[in-house]
Amino acid sequence: MGNVDWKKFPSKLWARLASRRARSPGSWAHPADDARGYKPLRQAIAQYLGSSKGIACAADQITIVSGVQQALDVLARLLLSRDDKVWLEDPGYFGARIAFENAGAQIVPVPVDAEGIVVAQGIATGAAAAGAYVTPAHQFPLGPAMSLGRRMELLKWAASSGAFVIEDDYDSEYRFEGRPIPALMSLDRGSNVIMVGSFSKLLFPALRIGYIVAPPALADFVAAFRLQTDFRAIHLEQTVLTDFIDGGHFSRHVRRMREIYAGRHAPLIEAARRHLAGVLDVQNVHCGLYTAAQLRNSMSSAEAERAALAAGVETLSLDRYTWSTSDPKGLLLGFASFHETAIRKGIRRLARAFR
Amino acid sequence: MGNVDWKKFPSKLWARLASRRARSPGSWAHPADDARGYKPLRQAIAQYLGSSKGIACAADQITIVSGVQQALDVLARLLLSRDDKVWLEDPGYFGARIAFENAGAQIVPVPVDAEGIVVAQGIATGAAAAGAYVTPAHQFPLGPAMSLGRRMELLKWAASSGAFVIEDDYDSEYRFEGRPIPALMSLDRGSNVIMVGSFSKLLFPALRIGYIVAPPALADFVAAFRLQTDFRAIHLEQTVLTDFIDGGHFSRHVRRMREIYAGRHAPLIEAARRHLAGVLDVQNVHCGLYTAAQLRNSMSSAEAERAALAAGVETLSLDRYTWSTSDPKGLLLGFASFHETAIRKGIRRLARAFR
Repeated sequence: MGNVDWKKFPSKLWARLASRRARSPGSWAHPADDARGYKPLRQAIAQYLGSSKGIACAADQITIVSGVQQALDVLARLLLSRDDKVWLEDPGYFGARIAFENAGAQIVPVPVDAEGIVVAQGIATGAAAAGAYVTPAHQFPLGPAMSLGRRMELLKWAASSGAFVIEDDYDSEYRFEGRPIPALMSLDRGSNVIMVGSFSKLLFPALRIGYIVAPPALADFVAAFRLQTDFRAIHLEQTVLTDFIDGGHFSRHVRRMREIYAGRHAPLIEAARRHLAGVLDVQNVHCGLYTAAQLRNSMSSAEAERAALAAGVETLSLDRYTWSTSDPKGLLLGFASFHETAIRKGIRRLARAFR
Repeated sequence: MGNVDWKKFPSKLWARLASRRARSPGSWAHPADDARGYKPLRQAIAQYLGSSKGIACAADQITIVSGVQQALDVLARLLLSRDDKVWLEDPGYFGARIAFENAGAQIVPVPVDAEGIVVAQGIATGAAAAGAYVTPAHQFPLGPAMSLGRRMELLKWAASSGAFVIEDDYDSEYRFEGRPIPALMSLDRGSNVIMVGSFSKLLFPALRIGYIVAPPALADFVAAFRLQTDFRAIHLEQTVLTDFIDGGHFSRHVRRMREIYAGRHAPLIEAARRHLAGVLDVQNVHCGLYTAAQLRNSMSSAEAERAALAAGVETLSLDRYTWSTSDPKGLLLGFASFHETAIRKGIRRLARAFR
């Protein structure tokens, strides 16, 4: 569902940049030890976060990690004590649950609706939680962006209770209509929000580079704790990525992929409307690499997943991502790594399977 | 103290291999998900461990990690529960202490002598420990290799009590005299030993590739837990390292560096004997990138470190590495990244500082 079309990645350009850096190891092979990661990369990321997400941050607020999972693992261990409570969207992201449970925390599942996490419900069941994990740009897995009202509610709760809010910014670059939505962190006046992000879905999955953006007072602790779990932060690919961003290739590639994915998203929505209306309603959240779809027949999510598979279409049932809510009766359909013809064919197969 | 002479690394060759792999992303950019790391690399490491350290292991017993610290962090969290006891050599390796304490374990410091960890003392103070961390090839930081007798004692305790033994194989490749010493793991008949190793000190520090070799019954758990903390295991540099090993460049480079470091170790020993005898006795353990030296004047380790620094020589006092033993009155002297002339000059400066 979250696969990117990595064949479109300009790998020859990347190889040229990598080769140049590999030939001049003085620039990276034994850099001044920097627990936060390669400084020019952190500067490039800070600039990007400012221009694309409205986050005003300094390079030293950023710690480079291997990806979002390492970010969550480090933050969970640093911020949570055993039996601390933490809010998780329900349905929500399994990776966050793994990280929090490995740190010994107790999950407080909080339902989501079309505006995102239902903050009032979180306060009702877990007001004293140490923190919350949210996906404001593109709720995982249902898709909607968190409304401004909910964002303000969440920040108000965090500021008044001293809770942290981890903002997982995944897929925010792949918004096909409307203006980019500013990050939750850009609205934060209380230094409660920590953002985590990754380049895997923007460039290629084997690029193990992600980042944590922490409020100034927390940033040193994040960097120091990551160092305790993984020592050196800098490797060659960080310098290659720096060149890729600074040379303008990153924003060009993201723009191009956004157009390509939009050109796959549109026929998915259109074909689903034609062939699946009233059976499987594919939501148009104008964003992401996959979309959620609601079952309108009598099937459970799991039954629908099996029926789709029998018809030759691999989907993921939404109840794989629930903690305590009942079956949301829906499927996830990935589209980013498929051509239009494959998408239309898949939709027709689903229509036959579900009617 | 542990710096390598990374300028001798064949970076142009590495760049050529990296460039070739980067141009063919099909070979790595979106590989079949493999929680253990790139399989051809694990096969190359298994073969290397067999021929160089006498370890008979299958590629699937190996999990690729970012380095020894991630290996220790993963193993500590997987193998230790809160308040479990674990043996640590005293003086010993701070990185292991950090990993074990972050997992909530209690450290049992066990003294070391010329034969390595004093197993009888460990049994006397912590027979019920869950495990032990040792550096058998080159005790950190004192230098001696663990004797065969101690190895058998340690394995006997582990087998009878069901304890794990983590063997940190650091610097074992840099043995200047005599035959390579087989790994502790090669003597293990009880599946108690887990080996951790890294390529950072063999190739270049920014290469973030290390490994865990676990007994067959444990290997799946290690791979699964690492995956929970860091998701995807494969990145481009793993494929480059595979080509570097398979092409014979790795063993050639290690042989060459061993000769170079031996040619720096010998003048250190010789000059120390001439200028420092009776004041600072430099031990010849025939191994490693640094050596320990015993103070024979009245200075404490910390006083000696300060006096050396005032004379323009950066050393590290041995009492930085003790947990509960008294000051071992000694210094660590790195030699691997210095030319002979710098080494001789440094020894003369130390002689002036300490006499």
